[in-house]
Amino acid sequence: MARMKLLMIICDGMADRPSEELEGRTPLDAADTPVMDRLAREGQCGMMNPIGTGIVPGSDTAHLSLLGYDPYRYYCGRGTLEAAGLGIDMEKGDVAFRCNFATSDKDLRVLDRRAGRISGGTVELAKALDGRMIEDVRVIFKEAVEHRSVMVLKGTGLSSEVSETDPHKEGEIVWTAKALKPEAEKTARILNEFTRMSFDILDKHPVNLDRKEKGLLPGNIILSRGPGDVPDIPSFSVKHGMEAGAIVGITLVKGLCRILGMEVIEVDGATGGADTNLAGKMDAAINALIEKDFVLLHIKGTDVFGHDGDVAGKKEYIQKVDASLGPLVEKLGDDVLLALTADHSTPTSVKDHASDTVPLLVHGRGMRFDNVQKFSETEAAGGMLGTINGQELMPLMKGLAGWVDKFGA
Amino acid sequence: MARMKLLMIICDGMADRPSEELEGRTPLDAADTPVMDRLAREGQCGMMNPIGTGIVPGSDTAHLSLLGYDPYRYYCGRGTLEAAGLGIDMEKGDVAFRCNFATSDKDLRVLDRRAGRISGGTVELAKALDGRMIEDVRVIFKEAVEHRSVMVLKGTGLSSEVSETDPHKEGEIVWTAKALKPEAEKTARILNEFTRMSFDILDKHPVNLDRKEKGLLPGNIILSRGPGDVPDIPSFSVKHGMEAGAIVGITLVKGLCRILGMEVIEVDGATGGADTNLAGKMDAAINALIEKDFVLLHIKGTDVFGHDGDVAGKKEYIQKVDASLGPLVEKLGDDVLLALTADHSTPTSVKDHASDTVPLLVHGRGMRFDNVQKFSETEAAGGMLGTINGQELMPLMKGLAGWVDKFGA
Repeated sequence: MARMKLLMIICDGMADRPSEELEGRTPLDAADTPVMDRLAREGQCGMMNPIGTGIVPGSDTAHLSLLGYDPYRYYCGRGTLEAAGLGIDMEKGDVAFRCNFATSDKDLRVLDRRAGRISGGTVELAKALDGRMIEDVRVIFKEAVEHRSVMVLKGTGLSSEVSETDPHKEGEIVWTAKALKPEAEKTARILNEFTRMSFDILDKHPVNLDRKEKGLLPGNIILSRGPGDVPDIPSFSVKHGMEAGAIVGITLVKGLCRILGMEVIEVDGATGGADTNLAGKMDAAINALIEKDFVLLHIKGTDVFGHDGDVAGKKEYIQKVDASLGPLVEKLGDDVLLALTADHSTPTSVKDHASDTVPLLVHGRGMRFDNVQKFSETEAAGGMLGTINGQELMPLMKGLAGWVDKFGA
Repeated sequence: MARMKLLMIICDGMADRPSEELEGRTPLDAADTPVMDRLAREGQCGMMNPIGTGIVPGSDTAHLSLLGYDPYRYYCGRGTLEAAGLGIDMEKGDVAFRCNFATSDKDLRVLDRRAGRISGGTVELAKALDGRMIEDVRVIFKEAVEHRSVMVLKGTGLSSEVSETDPHKEGEIVWTAKALKPEAEKTARILNEFTRMSFDILDKHPVNLDRKEKGLLPGNIILSRGPGDVPDIPSFSVKHGMEAGAIVGITLVKGLCRILGMEVIEVDGATGGADTNLAGKMDAAINALIEKDFVLLHIKGTDVFGHDGDVAGKKEYIQKVDASLGPLVEKLGDDVLLALTADHSTPTSVKDHASDTVPLLVHGRGMRFDNVQKFSETEAAGGMLGTINGQELMPLMKGLAGWVDKFGA
């Protein structure tokens, strides 16, 4: 059987619940989606528990599962994913943290956890911390969006089993990091010294002196949370025997893909929001499939409307996604085994992730097809795939696409 | 997401097979059940393997599974469940047995395993044994229905790994209990001494002297079987983070609920049979939901008609259950996440439990709904839940009702 290449399209949080505004239909059901519906008619549909029945998935844990990994075994903490997502080269033994530029007084009492939502100047502030040594440990520090940043500690004898320094509310003294396991004593010591040092360096930094003069809150201390290490995880190519590319809307999932050794392909105008360059992402996927065996195409916008509770906006955005899929499907025909699904439900009525199943379709050359005429939560539930688990998606796709050797004779 | 409370309604053995008497329909399908059908239309349906494909569940093992516990790990033997069901306070280290009052001669040859189905006088006979000491072990002895009774041994160094003393047929000498593992030597010795003692005490007891005079068989010896200990099992509140109540028709499941730390709520006129006070049980469930987060409502009658092979009776009883559900559904509206299912099939054609799947519906606020119009084995199989395993029911309910934290980000 001639192999097909694989394209997994994940519309983040696309799955939803019935909405009164749509007369009891979901945004996906109510949307006019001729391309998705054609794929559903020609392909096979079903439902999927991204992680398991009753589990409310994060986008990170769900993507681990959909890419074929057990998230309970391999989930490594958000610091690592954010750091890798920002392009910091993480190695085994490193420990990563999500950080905030915050405002504190000289007693390290937190006045504002986000330093007045500081944006300009964080590149310079981060540079003032990046590369510092504490004992034999090197601090890698990089700014992210607004007050957010990421730190990676590189050195010997480090562990992610430390408590956070972020007190999570204003008016509290910055917390002292503690070792949650004996092997993390050194990491806690380094982290506490770093926190003190961050105030000493940042409080007198020109960017902050300037902010104080203007009556703005200085970003004069670093709060750390979400410690993560690099998991012992087989790369995507080792696990699946495929070279993989990823076109991904959010840092968190970019980080995961980098940790799995997938090539993260950046697209001009891709913003991770509803204003992203959908056509550019589709083109990038088509191009990536020339060299790669597997491409992950992740679209964030659907989830944004879910979190905002914007039913009409979500429906319209799904229609935009559908329209942008047209040229891609035209170009690929049925030469590529395509899967279209969501990483989780983000019901507009809930405004957050829910444990509901997500609809799934697979489409490719020579496959069976079922009686599903439209791609929606209710219709897909009547499809021939039944209800699968997220970790079954890769095996399902690989099997249908001819990547699997016979077991037995 | 605003949490809903949970109500799990189990109609024991309700699921069935097609019957000629009903022109190929099942009792549930043939029954006129407007309330269940409405719940099915407004909610989600599916099928459930209470324990697993091809497993014939007991009511005890099935309830363990539906309450979220692996029955292969936690099933503890029927003696324990019956003892707890009768209200005997079981503690770790105790060993419980199901017992019969039986008739033997002085050589301990069993003449009747049920002492002529003795009923009156067993309270007095049980009292004559209750509280006796053998070595450092205290005997707790309590009569149950007819010739049945329960014994709990409380003391040090006990084990349930002993063989039974009940020879299971007449004409045999009472079996000598043997240790199946070395740690049960003491228990076997105590049990054998108890058996001998039971004859010495009971044979000359006034109740039995009176029975002999009347030509009735005396209940002059105790036969023991089904040894069970108290399993290391997390309580329902620890496992699920919910305070739970149970309104249950049979001792076996009451015992299970007590072992799980659920409050067993007794209802006036609840008999565990088809003549039970259905309205009273429904009221009790509504009231229990004021204080509790989770309520189990178990209805036994359906199973009784299954065991009797009474097709028409089962159909009519299902209609009675449906009618009694009306006021409950009216009262609760969609503020409670309700699940309606069976713990196993008891096909009237089989007159015993079968491994068939059972139909399931879930109903609550804001959920998706599917195309199922009627609650029956065949229709539910077309629902959007697909086929789940019994152990998935609690996660499914908790997820839909907003009790689950996000895993990941």
